[in-house]
Amino acid sequence: MIGYSVPGFLASASAAGLNKKGSLDLSLIVSQKSAVAAGVFTTNRVKAAPVLLTQERIQRGLLRAVVINTGYANACTGKQGLHDAINTADIVAKRLDIDPEETVVASTGVIGAYLPFHLIKRAIPDLVSKLSKGGFTSVAQAMMTTDSFPKISYREGIVGGKSYHLLGLAKGAGMIMPNMATMLSFLVTDINIDFKTLWPLFRSAVDSTFNRITVDGETSTNDMALIMANGFAGNGELDRSDIKAFKTNLLDVMGELAFMIAKDGEGATKVIIVEVNGAATKNDAQKAAMAVGNSNLVKTAVFGRDPNWGRIMAALGRAGIKIEEHRVEIWIGGVKIVDGGTMISERAEREAAEKMKEEEIPITIHLNHGKWKDRVLTCDLTYDYIRINADYRS
Amino acid sequence: MIGYSVPGFLASASAAGLNKKGSLDLSLIVSQKSAVAAGVFTTNRVKAAPVLLTQERIQRGLLRAVVINTGYANACTGKQGLHDAINTADIVAKRLDIDPEETVVASTGVIGAYLPFHLIKRAIPDLVSKLSKGGFTSVAQAMMTTDSFPKISYREGIVGGKSYHLLGLAKGAGMIMPNMATMLSFLVTDINIDFKTLWPLFRSAVDSTFNRITVDGETSTNDMALIMANGFAGNGELDRSDIKAFKTNLLDVMGELAFMIAKDGEGATKVIIVEVNGAATKNDAQKAAMAVGNSNLVKTAVFGRDPNWGRIMAALGRAGIKIEEHRVEIWIGGVKIVDGGTMISERAEREAAEKMKEEEIPITIHLNHGKWKDRVLTCDLTYDYIRINADYRS
Repeated sequence: MIGYSVPGFLASASAAGLNKKGSLDLSLIVSQKSAVAAGVFTTNRVKAAPVLLTQERIQRGLLRAVVINTGYANACTGKQGLHDAINTADIVAKRLDIDPEETVVASTGVIGAYLPFHLIKRAIPDLVSKLSKGGFTSVAQAMMTTDSFPKISYREGIVGGKSYHLLGLAKGAGMIMPNMATMLSFLVTDINIDFKTLWPLFRSAVDSTFNRITVDGETSTNDMALIMANGFAGNGELDRSDIKAFKTNLLDVMGELAFMIAKDGEGATKVIIVEVNGAATKNDAQKAAMAVGNSNLVKTAVFGRDPNWGRIMAALGRAGIKIEEHRVEIWIGGVKIVDGGTMISERAEREAAEKMKEEEIPITIHLNHGKWKDRVLTCDLTYDYIRINADYRS
Repeated sequence: MIGYSVPGFLASASAAGLNKKGSLDLSLIVSQKSAVAAGVFTTNRVKAAPVLLTQERIQRGLLRAVVINTGYANACTGKQGLHDAINTADIVAKRLDIDPEETVVASTGVIGAYLPFHLIKRAIPDLVSKLSKGGFTSVAQAMMTTDSFPKISYREGIVGGKSYHLLGLAKGAGMIMPNMATMLSFLVTDINIDFKTLWPLFRSAVDSTFNRITVDGETSTNDMALIMANGFAGNGELDRSDIKAFKTNLLDVMGELAFMIAKDGEGATKVIIVEVNGAATKNDAQKAAMAVGNSNLVKTAVFGRDPNWGRIMAALGRAGIKIEEHRVEIWIGGVKIVDGGTMISERAEREAAEKMKEEEIPITIHLNHGKWKDRVLTCDLTYDYIRINADYRS
């Protein structure tokens, strides 16, 4: 993972003492000139101070810097929290001599505790002095909370004879649920692209990647995904095929990050890929995939390597969708196990159980009602999810 | 628990061999004359064969007998399943010489496997021969699956100088979620009451008891709650105060059963009582209470005795309700911990943590938006939930 860099971007991380382990917990991403920027934010109505601030500042469509901290969510902290978020951005902006209005913050950690602002303030000089082209791997590490590995994805492309680079970082693990920006994710690229082109591309890529993962049905107060494009590639206006190629790269990078987040779901031992076909409406397809993907009973069955398709049927039945039992087909691990709403054979169950020893478990459902489909990534529910979340603050 | 009986009702249980442990798994409740009956059934669109059959037969408002089996849900079993359910009822009816149309069935267990009908058929003579007034405690035992204790509640009352009895049985444990009849529950009473009076009383009691518990957000394919009133008490027409007194008893019995179900939630070590006040609408109150009650993160925090009110705020924020962060107040274990949307003090947190050592944890929320309130019972999420559900079929 060493050596990823994107022209015109610098990054760094520092151990500010926000988490007790003394690991990297504060990080910074800076563009060497104002970058076209877009963001997607949590839909939770309780929004952390950094979300409120960043949502406001990104409205101009330009960013220079993002400061990220772990340990403290700076959520449910009232005016003091907002004050701390603004001060963090301001101090960094002053130190970098950039516009504070183009400097934003992102936080993740415990809700409700006030940010130990003095620790952040003290670490900023170190953070700024460490800025380097190759600093992104340490940012990915500094963003981790209950994550077990850093999440980075990278692609290159060519537009109008100029090469560009796209780098994505993410943190995930728990509190992951669609209809939000999802966890924290930051993408940087040197492609030259205008806001009007970038925004819908990013929004739709979030919908089909980050908004298609669920770990536990929880939506955090702090989630955000940001993209910054600084134009250092020097390409001219993008034509339709350029946009298409860039979109593919964007989907690849964000899709990989989403997969890593599902794989690193708190306590997870397996990734579950829930695919629903043949739904009567688009909404039905989404609801069906989410009902199965969020079912504690399905997720524990996968942990137990039990091809318990009855729990899948039960989840579909309570999804609030159009469903006729006798039309339903189900495959687990590629083995067809249900036809006409009933079990095909005990042999099929045994074969599916065998496939469930693998690390990626596809669950494919055909409702046979229409043409709509959806796909959701999730993970199994294990003893370690309980351990991690019963002990998180202690 | 010995000795509960209700005039005019008989009950029995048998070990038919449906579950491998050789424990009681088949049971029977019979009224000595046709009883006025009402039922509430799962809202899952995938309904088990016994649900389909019982829903149809109860439409006349009269029942004589209920046959209950564990081990097999007889859900997702197509025509064969319906055939098996009808046959079970028919054989019992024939043996008892009663109308098969007044004989219904209830099942709980693994979805998708066909009922081993030959085992049921073989056990029916024994089941019928064992019928007795005191048989209800063995029925409560025979209904258990992952339940750790049998659930029985009992009240007596007097109407128009005549005493009547009300006995309720339930099974619960997992797959418990509102908007269904909830798990299996059977209530018998000798009060003389007409269907027009009984039905709304029962429906509303289900709403405020069984539909206010959630263990894991799952809705089973098999849930049903039935009440049978055979009139053996010999009372005349009920006046308004009689109805009110009977309603109180009904709510007591069903409320106790609901509490026992939450307490016996799969793997639970604590009951959580989520109370929401000051919601803008009735619907908001319900959604808020359910969002908190179904939150895996809140439930694991309770298991870890962590007064993590931030997770409660986050659950409220994603509940899709009207909420203004700065108005929210939260009490955990009776200790006020949040005011104006932020933490009151670390001392309050420590006090709340101390209270969380108890077995019943009230979480009280005031949204300060309006007059609506709701209350939901749930339980913590523990290692044992995972163990039970990862191993359920093996």
